Amino acid sequence: MGGDSDKLSGEDRLIAHYFGPVAAHPGALGLSDDAAFIAAPPDCDLVLKTDAVVAGIHFFPDDAARTVAAKALRVNLSDLAAKGATPLGFLLSLALPSGVGDAWLSDFAEGLRGDAVLFNCPLFGGDTVRTTGPVVISVAMFGSVPRGAMVRRAGAAAGDLVFVTGSIGDAALGLALRQGADWGLDPAQRQHLMSRYLLPQPRNALADAVRRYASAAMDVSDGLAGDLAKLCRVSQVSADIDVSRVPLSAAAQAAIAADPAMRETALTGGDDFEILCTVPPAKAGDFRAAARAAGVAVTEIGTIGAGEGARFLHEGKALAFRRAAFSHF
Amino acid sequence: MGGDSDKLSGEDRLIAHYFGPVAAHPGALGLSDDAAFIAAPPDCDLVLKTDAVVAGIHFFPDDAARTVAAKALRVNLSDLAAKGATPLGFLLSLALPSGVGDAWLSDFAEGLRGDAVLFNCPLFGGDTVRTTGPVVISVAMFGSVPRGAMVRRAGAAAGDLVFVTGSIGDAALGLALRQGADWGLDPAQRQHLMSRYLLPQPRNALADAVRRYASAAMDVSDGLAGDLAKLCRVSQVSADIDVSRVPLSAAAQAAIAADPAMRETALTGGDDFEILCTVPPAKAGDFRAAARAAGVAVTEIGTIGAGEGARFLHEGKALAFRRAAFSHF
Repeated sequence: MGGDSDKLSGEDRLIAHYFGPVAAHPGALGLSDDAAFIAAPPDCDLVLKTDAVVAGIHFFPDDAARTVAAKALRVNLSDLAAKGATPLGFLLSLALPSGVGDAWLSDFAEGLRGDAVLFNCPLFGGDTVRTTGPVVISVAMFGSVPRGAMVRRAGAAAGDLVFVTGSIGDAALGLALRQGADWGLDPAQRQHLMSRYLLPQPRNALADAVRRYASAAMDVSDGLAGDLAKLCRVSQVSADIDVSRVPLSAAAQAAIAADPAMRETALTGGDDFEILCTVPPAKAGDFRAAARAAGVAVTEIGTIGAGEGARFLHEGKALAFRRAAFSHF
Repeated sequence: MGGDSDKLSGEDRLIAHYFGPVAAHPGALGLSDDAAFIAAPPDCDLVLKTDAVVAGIHFFPDDAARTVAAKALRVNLSDLAAKGATPLGFLLSLALPSGVGDAWLSDFAEGLRGDAVLFNCPLFGGDTVRTTGPVVISVAMFGSVPRGAMVRRAGAAAGDLVFVTGSIGDAALGLALRQGADWGLDPAQRQHLMSRYLLPQPRNALADAVRRYASAAMDVSDGLAGDLAKLCRVSQVSADIDVSRVPLSAAAQAAIAADPAMRETALTGGDDFEILCTVPPAKAGDFRAAARAAGVAVTEIGTIGAGEGARFLHEGKALAFRRAAFSHF
């Protein structure tokens, strides 16, 4: 329970060397203090989120450390985007087995640094601890919205239109590929699906539009079907989704053509990290225009109604899923 | 990599059932949303900290879950206290092996709830993930100080007086007892030392006084000697400590009387979670009065000088420690 140290403990050395460059904000004090500070933005609410990823559960132990770092950040960035929030920064807690060496840490820190710059979201502090188990990476992220403006899961109303960003199901199909599925895809299609599992593409560019026009929103992390059901439940509404309108990449379409059971995988699988939101019809035109300006594809896939439950209508029939939601737990 | 679920995923059920009562702030939305919000306090800086604890490293796997929860919170609360900050809330990331059942979680949540109330520091969100390794508990805590007022490690000046709160070394000696040391202590003495390891007593009651009167401060988590050396290094000063003035509990004095080598353990061992701070002589009277009013014992143990290095003077000689600082890493 401890280790020898000279002037700097092992942890201090690690932090200063690898993570100092990720802590670009002056309030991070070069990670040399017990805590960091940042001016609280005036007339704003802070938006707070934590998500962890574990080797062997959320990523493969042999994934490149820099993409693991990016994934750990991006699953949190995706939540902030869906809430209409602007990232301010993050805290990092890293539990490392003794086999993790300098090469892994260096690559991990480089992945963090790249995304901290890309998403304007610096590191404000961290803790590294030893574990006898797998790597556990916990990110706590904080952002801001104008006072009272965080977009919630509750808020969808009958008549609202249902939108999703990007394409659905790629990551779940990419995971299936890594686990051995073979649908005769061409290399580019395989690459597309696997990269979507490996590295989420959070839609932070759409955060402003979501905040201005959406009545409810969440990020799709546990599968479109299950996440829409959650949104409907807290909004106390129902949803009818036209499965033919759910945006699928060409690669996902090819996988489903080869194995129709993959449609359910696409609709219920996890790790999409797209935004699911509801928009009142009167605001839909402005929402589409804002999304276009932000460079984020959005697709209308259905409507909100009274009652309860999320129905996925395919060729005139409601799909019955074997499982309603993906759970990493 | 996933599990079946019905209406609520396993994680959702866990969170709602056990952790909902800890999330007393309305902005936590009953943990039913992707993120939480809180009004950014006006004219303040946010103070940000994360620390993790791991079973088998920072606590014994058979420690009561409620004290583990309290320890995970308190190691972070202690940092906020030393920075002069008032806690606002925390995020929790919990990696759990499959052997952890409802009884452990229920007791853990009860420990969290107790301290969330005691320290006025509610839960704002969490993530529970599976791990094949030991329990890893990461807390990210945020607090506030008036703009620009966070007390740093840097800031100590020649002539300042060095203070510590409470007593030093109890936790390190308590850990040694749990690991089999036997100094012929009476049961109450053993109990005192072991409880100080088991459950830190962070000095948040002193935060205001630290902010008003201290030129530099940090919490003592890696041993007084090593932590003072860190403070001196970033402040670019030296310190001379009179070992006879370092506050020791009666139990610690008994342990040292039985084995004089335990003096070094007390001065360099970890987990004190006391506040170490420097105070200009002109403010020392006010600091003592404020500490008395807050009900926190403070002891003057030495002075800051020019130059560098922290010296511990015992019976006319400077102690040479076998190791300068404790490291959990």
